[in-house]
Amino acid sequence: MAATDPTPVRPGQGDPSALHGLAGLSGLELIRAINEQKAPPPNIALLLGMEMVEVEEGRVVFALDAKPEFANPLGTVHGGIHATLLDSAMGCAVHTTLPAGVGYTTLELKVNYVKAISLDAGTLTCVGQVIHVGGRVATAEGRVTDGDGRLLAHATTTCMIFR
Amino acid sequence: MAATDPTPVRPGQGDPSALHGLAGLSGLELIRAINEQKAPPPNIALLLGMEMVEVEEGRVVFALDAKPEFANPLGTVHGGIHATLLDSAMGCAVHTTLPAGVGYTTLELKVNYVKAISLDAGTLTCVGQVIHVGGRVATAEGRVTDGDGRLLAHATTTCMIFR
Amino acid sequence: MAATDPTPVRPGQGDPSALHGLAGLSGLELIRAINEQKAPPPNIALLLGMEMVEVEEGRVVFALDAKPEFANPLGTVHGGIHATLLDSAMGCAVHTTLPAGVGYTTLELKVNYVKAISLDAGTLTCVGQVIHVGGRVATAEGRVTDGDGRLLAHATTTCMIFR
Amino acid sequence: MAATDPTPVRPGQGDPSALHGLAGLSGLELIRAINEQKAPPPNIALLLGMEMVEVEEGRVVFALDAKPEFANPLGTVHGGIHATLLDSAMGCAVHTTLPAGVGYTTLELKVNYVKAISLDAGTLTCVGQVIHVGGRVATAEGRVTDGDGRLLAHATTTCMIFR
Repeated sequence: MAATDPTPVRPGQGDPSALHGLAGLSGLELIRAINEQKAPPPNIALLLGMEMVEVEEGRVVFALDAKPEFANPLGTVHGGIHATLLDSAMGCAVHTTLPAGVGYTTLELKVNYVKAISLDAGTLTCVGQVIHVGGRVATAEGRVTDGDGRLLAHATTTCMIFR
Repeated sequence: MAATDPTPVRPGQGDPSALHGLAGLSGLELIRAINEQKAPPPNIALLLGMEMVEVEEGRVVFALDAKPEFANPLGTVHGGIHATLLDSAMGCAVHTTLPAGVGYTTLELKVNYVKAISLDAGTLTCVGQVIHVGGRVATAEGRVTDGDGRLLAHATTTCMIFR
Repeated sequence: MAATDPTPVRPGQGDPSALHGLAGLSGLELIRAINEQKAPPPNIALLLGMEMVEVEEGRVVFALDAKPEFANPLGTVHGGIHATLLDSAMGCAVHTTLPAGVGYTTLELKVNYVKAISLDAGTLTCVGQVIHVGGRVATAEGRVTDGDGRLLAHATTTCMIFR
Repeated sequence: MAATDPTPVRPGQGDPSALHGLAGLSGLELIRAINEQKAPPPNIALLLGMEMVEVEEGRVVFALDAKPEFANPLGTVHGGIHATLLDSAMGCAVHTTLPAGVGYTTLELKVNYVKAISLDAGTLTCVGQVIHVGGRVATAEGRVTDGDGRLLAHATTTCMIFR
């Protein structure tokens, strides 16, 4: 089985063929395989240094270190970074609830920015949590916090499920 | 004046000190200075290859080439990239309406994803356009299209203004 | 044809049976039948005094008079009223693009409140306009203005289509 | 004290003068006064039959019976009703965190519709809960459930605070 004895893959392939051999996995198994580095992370994770750190059914946690490369014109972390983290964590949380062969796509993402993030803020943690999974639509919520647990941003998303 | 005879600056400083000498500019002058490369783009623009291509009062256009580094697990452009483009274009559009010394921050961002973007989709264009600018709050809308003018994503944002 | 020679119906039935004989109509024909009072308005329109005033493919306009019954605790029109108007206009705009036998439902609604509406503001006009209609999802935008054309609120929505 | 010995007021005045004598109350005291019927509910609550049923700091619960008057063209409860409930509960939840003399306004409201509500669904319960209250901005979330605890809709809101 791919999840227990995976062919070694080079990380970060953007090509779905990187997931060859993983097609029979449930969403939870696939997300766990990525978390355990048995499946490659997507390129965007490598570009930003975004890492999946916890996986359970309906809940996925990502971590990302703030860095100077993320600066917006004000010298704080660009809001697109929060959005990328939140979209990743919430989308993966939805994915963990889906059986093998069932896909999804994000229809919309809504982010609230609570507090500006300085470029030396350290590690940001983003929890994505499913709110509701129905036959055709799922919704989830997410929160970004800093190392002191302060809320920096929160979000919701609507995903369509392809059964 | 900084806008007509700027001190050469190295591009991409995340530090607001990169904007030294630009403090007396109106929002429109400052955004134009960035567009004319008299002021540095923020680091996030360099990281992603995002470029401002048009500026007028209340409307700013960005361009960005799709690339393999943006891949999500499905092998298409990660939704965080659209969000980054849209937040940039809409925020800058709001900024062009503000006088010198007046700042703003993004309170919330809402993105609708209309069509998945392939990694070889070519140049994405993102137009940010102000909807309403009031005393304390501004709203804007944005659209991302591909080279054939197809709508890929659209968004709205709410910004707070600090007068 | 139901649209040209409808069975007289009492207005405002909440029961879909009120639409008996209208099932073969396209969305545009059905919305026009309501606009021409050949089909009953829904009860919510009667409760609030909300009226459809213009219909074309992809665009529907509603009107509603501000009134004391709409007061929130601050003595202005409650934000739920704007939301009701906007959801109606945008949903109907989407509906006008659908063929007979195809339904839709609203997945999410996002409203921005630009200006408080006084209880004696007169007639509010709400334009709903389709942004994108795809195979399974449609999006639309809406704006509420007062008699002087001032923008009071704007919105977007995401609808799922059942083909 | 107005909260302990209020002048009797007739319910449902849309006019802020209905709140005469209550101006010195904190947000929590004022919302509690409404909950205890020592201050009038706003007219919109009377129009719809919406009732505040629980108040604590940062959390307010409303109840509302589904009824035929709320019908949309499909014969289910119009999405504007959920929006009205959610805006009320979340706005009041924010209000309970504010000291006397500090006001707020809703900047934006985002509702996700999870499940259609039948006209005979019975009592809908809506919980509004603060997420974050800062100096100038507050955010809150809300959920609407039916008598069996099934999730029907959820929402977030962004409010501006006037200190």
